[in-house]
Amino acid sequence: MDQKSMKNAPIGIFDSGVGGLTVVREVMRQIPGEEIVYFGDTARVPYGSKTPATVLRYARQIVHFLKTQQVKAIVVACNTASALALPAIREEEELPVMGVVEPGAHMAAMVSRTGRIGVIGTEATVHSGIYEQMLQRLAPQATVIPRACPLLCPIVEEGMLHDPVTDEIVRRYLAPLMEEKIDTLIMGCTHYPLLRSTFRRILGDTVELINPAYETAVALKAELGRLGLLRGEAADAAGDADAAGEKEQPAGQETKTAGQGPQGAALHHRFCVSDGAERFAAFAQTILPCEVGDVQVVNIEAY
Amino acid sequence: MDQKSMKNAPIGIFDSGVGGLTVVREVMRQIPGEEIVYFGDTARVPYGSKTPATVLRYARQIVHFLKTQQVKAIVVACNTASALALPAIREEEELPVMGVVEPGAHMAAMVSRTGRIGVIGTEATVHSGIYEQMLQRLAPQATVIPRACPLLCPIVEEGMLHDPVTDEIVRRYLAPLMEEKIDTLIMGCTHYPLLRSTFRRILGDTVELINPAYETAVALKAELGRLGLLRGEAADAAGDADAAGEKEQPAGQETKTAGQGPQGAALHHRFCVSDGAERFAAFAQTILPCEVGDVQVVNIEAY
Repeated sequence: MDQKSMKNAPIGIFDSGVGGLTVVREVMRQIPGEEIVYFGDTARVPYGSKTPATVLRYARQIVHFLKTQQVKAIVVACNTASALALPAIREEEELPVMGVVEPGAHMAAMVSRTGRIGVIGTEATVHSGIYEQMLQRLAPQATVIPRACPLLCPIVEEGMLHDPVTDEIVRRYLAPLMEEKIDTLIMGCTHYPLLRSTFRRILGDTVELINPAYETAVALKAELGRLGLLRGEAADAAGDADAAGEKEQPAGQETKTAGQGPQGAALHHRFCVSDGAERFAAFAQTILPCEVGDVQVVNIEAY
Repeated sequence: MDQKSMKNAPIGIFDSGVGGLTVVREVMRQIPGEEIVYFGDTARVPYGSKTPATVLRYARQIVHFLKTQQVKAIVVACNTASALALPAIREEEELPVMGVVEPGAHMAAMVSRTGRIGVIGTEATVHSGIYEQMLQRLAPQATVIPRACPLLCPIVEEGMLHDPVTDEIVRRYLAPLMEEKIDTLIMGCTHYPLLRSTFRRILGDTVELINPAYETAVALKAELGRLGLLRGEAADAAGDADAAGEKEQPAGQETKTAGQGPQGAALHHRFCVSDGAERFAAFAQTILPCEVGDVQVVNIEAY
């Protein structure tokens, strides 16, 4: 592809299921001129309890699929896959490939005053130690306190976002982090920002909440700009927010221009899954600012 | 294979993960002379939130794998796969193939006095309507009250078997069933018998709890006997329990002869998974009465 075709090519974004849609939403908000091809591995979800070798195999299949869609860059919109598969995939691929861990860790290192940073995520993400390694490089004096929260994804998928049972479970998971006096918490799973108000209530006002989905969209925009791959003049609706980070951005501030290209040309975002297209479409429609339309089922094992 | 080789062949048992080990335990207890090949699809677990087409594809791959292990019969030790894949697989295969739904429904129809039968399970199992269909045939006057309980598997896997949070969640799931005055509850997921004491406490003494894993082992023994496929004279330690059903059998009554064939020859049970062999082995060792030994990882997508 020449540079112009490259610029007009879509961005590939993938996740183990629906969680990565929080990254899609941020990308649509911050770089509304870009076209997106999303893949959710709903036939094999979740990744958080699986081994590194298996998650890497799954991620490689998805990267191969996305390359058949002529993407110009790939975002691994899943903390587990970013933790377990990103280094190998970066080595294997020439395309720019970004994960959610590095941008999240970077913002945490910037905003933490005391250097006491909590990280919550799936078992696989926490077990990988990736956030510790990353923060060790970015802020060598920081103390990282990790905690796996295996029940939070099922609770979010059950829709129990505001519930006394959820409060009690979150309280238990966060108690050791509060005892360690963290001043910053990385929400290290794409489902967790949906529990932001619960975290806020339990942690109080003094702990910064980091949403890696938001930071990833910021970093993606910067990286595409650096490589000369931004699709024309993107409307910069979220420009001010870039510098301030996402701290406590109220819900419902979506830039409703998503679905329109820079010159008003319609963008054709595409959504693909390995299972359950209708259910996925219904869920995606509730959180994205654009028309989701037909969701394609892909036999991902064949890639 | 001739009839003698067939008799000596192992029984194939599979599940989406570890849940089917409760069926293995019952088979080892009730037919201790049989050799078992178990497959747990830990790379794609859980099945309960996936579509019928995907669960059927996975089940077919596993059946193909088990046939390469020269099994004489196959047990689908997973309510979801029994609900969604069993009819098609039975049609395609000459081997005897049994599921857990029919034996569970059969016992429920037998013991219910009022015909008001509750069924709890994964979303996929409940959505399939399989227990209603089966009970409709067995007890046309019965009223079946189904309820999907998507949080119970993750709670069991998190080890929260005795916990006030678990009590509260179970209470919510069971409340509509209690309002409907059920007198029998089918624990329609292989994980649920581990919450038996919680169900008992919340439901009181008058509701019969049906464990399909137990009933499946009873039915398997009868079916192998009918086909002349029992491996020699099986020690009949659990014979008395057969007639009475499993109601409230205290834990820890495992027949410790499992691991020995009828003439004292060592049995070589084999355990295979699609991911995470070590973790599986550790879990299996806590619930089976035999030495689990090496667990083999199988690339199930290739079958």
